[in-house]
Amino acid sequence: MERIESASNAKIKLAASLHQRKERERRGEFVAEGVRLAETAALSGWPLSFCIVAEPALANERVQGILGILREQACPVYVVPPNVYKKASATESPQGILLVMKTVQNFLSKLDAGNDALFVVLDRIQDPGNAGTIIRTADAAGCSGVIAMEGTVDLFSDKVVRSSMGSLFHLPVVPDVKGSDWMTFAKKHGISCYAALLDKEATPYFARDFCKASAVVFGNEGNGVSGDILDGAEPIYIPMDGKAESLNVATSAAIVLYEAFRQRYNAASSQQR
Amino acid sequence: MERIESASNAKIKLAASLHQRKERERRGEFVAEGVRLAETAALSGWPLSFCIVAEPALANERVQGILGILREQACPVYVVPPNVYKKASATESPQGILLVMKTVQNFLSKLDAGNDALFVVLDRIQDPGNAGTIIRTADAAGCSGVIAMEGTVDLFSDKVVRSSMGSLFHLPVVPDVKGSDWMTFAKKHGISCYAALLDKEATPYFARDFCKASAVVFGNEGNGVSGDILDGAEPIYIPMDGKAESLNVATSAAIVLYEAFRQRYNAASSQQR
Repeated sequence: MERIESASNAKIKLAASLHQRKERERRGEFVAEGVRLAETAALSGWPLSFCIVAEPALANERVQGILGILREQACPVYVVPPNVYKKASATESPQGILLVMKTVQNFLSKLDAGNDALFVVLDRIQDPGNAGTIIRTADAAGCSGVIAMEGTVDLFSDKVVRSSMGSLFHLPVVPDVKGSDWMTFAKKHGISCYAALLDKEATPYFARDFCKASAVVFGNEGNGVSGDILDGAEPIYIPMDGKAESLNVATSAAIVLYEAFRQRYNAASSQQR
Repeated sequence: MERIESASNAKIKLAASLHQRKERERRGEFVAEGVRLAETAALSGWPLSFCIVAEPALANERVQGILGILREQACPVYVVPPNVYKKASATESPQGILLVMKTVQNFLSKLDAGNDALFVVLDRIQDPGNAGTIIRTADAAGCSGVIAMEGTVDLFSDKVVRSSMGSLFHLPVVPDVKGSDWMTFAKKHGISCYAALLDKEATPYFARDFCKASAVVFGNEGNGVSGDILDGAEPIYIPMDGKAESLNVATSAAIVLYEAFRQRYNAASSQQR
């Protein structure tokens, strides 16, 4: 462990610069911050660049555990005073540990698109909390991957990484996909593509069969699913009973992905009988 | 419409004071802020105290529409310069309209607990975004009411009101309920009470019958459902397939409440046949 005393140190400046998308993309690096997230990140197998720890956090047992895991991977650790840590941090009440890591490149051809594939497509989702929560839910629902269309919020932004609660490391996440590339991929692998719409004429989502290879598209918070993707998809609708006009997009994703989970779970159970 | 020029005007100070729970409870008033929310609030039938509009917002057509609705209810409107508006506002980029309103009192005995009742119980949920999102989802899923146990975040805080997207006005929301009062109420009305737990031994939620009068309890983000409520409830579990350790509580609520919706929808459809 090395000490850094100055906020103008190159490592601190580098970590701070990664709060900007441009720098993240240029360097292919991003930040995983906070005790729980750093723990998952340290165990993820993703390439680690270095770790910054605020001195008081060294007293935290979980932080000590993380440092042990980092040692096995020969990841450099820099200990800094709290005011220097704050320069590198993106959170308001920092827990005192962050990892700078390299982005693992995922792309469509790398995805496992078998008969039981279940993909989530984010079509220009803008809110980082929504994107991160959807990735977390997709992980829990056993999805095969998350595909983000061009124009979607950067999946390696601090807030997406944080709200994914580490699920970003658990399932393949493919950023910046062109609509036409997605359509070609879906066609090639015989993936049934469903688009979640605010359209009462569309089929209720639970009347669809999600047991075959499927993908569910969730559109932009304000404008919904884009035209070109809609062309190659079957519309689904989440019926609403009360006076609510719409559902949050992360809520919608949870409802549809867990219906897919339920159908697959029941199909597997009845096969076992 | 009256003009207010000074940030030390009593109406401005009153609106600003309502960002504190203590003042909200003392006065029985709260704030609904933003164009969309003010629109829903103005149409809600809830007692309106007064409205504050930033001068530039008067040019907005939707704001003009809201002012028309307020006129019908003889609700006083105060027009203020943007810097004065900011003193009253709780948002970072205010849209320039807020309503001060009286809280409609709901309590258990006022709830409609028929054979098809479906209640949501918030057991010390702390995050206002989670509480508001659950209220919005409960509205969409056709729930009969939301019951907040003592120790839950204040349902009339700015952020809960905002993230409920107006659903707070659509279905009865009962704050500050004692565990024993809830248990007595549930027993009296024959309500099957399910508690969502992170316990793999519990029954998967979709194996439960939500067609009868039911309630689903969602617990504190860190500590889950409290012991006394658990005693009177049947545990349910949302199975997870991936490596995710848990789901966001608002996500969990969406999954379970929409399973109830699906079961009820299918039961109603098969009766019609």
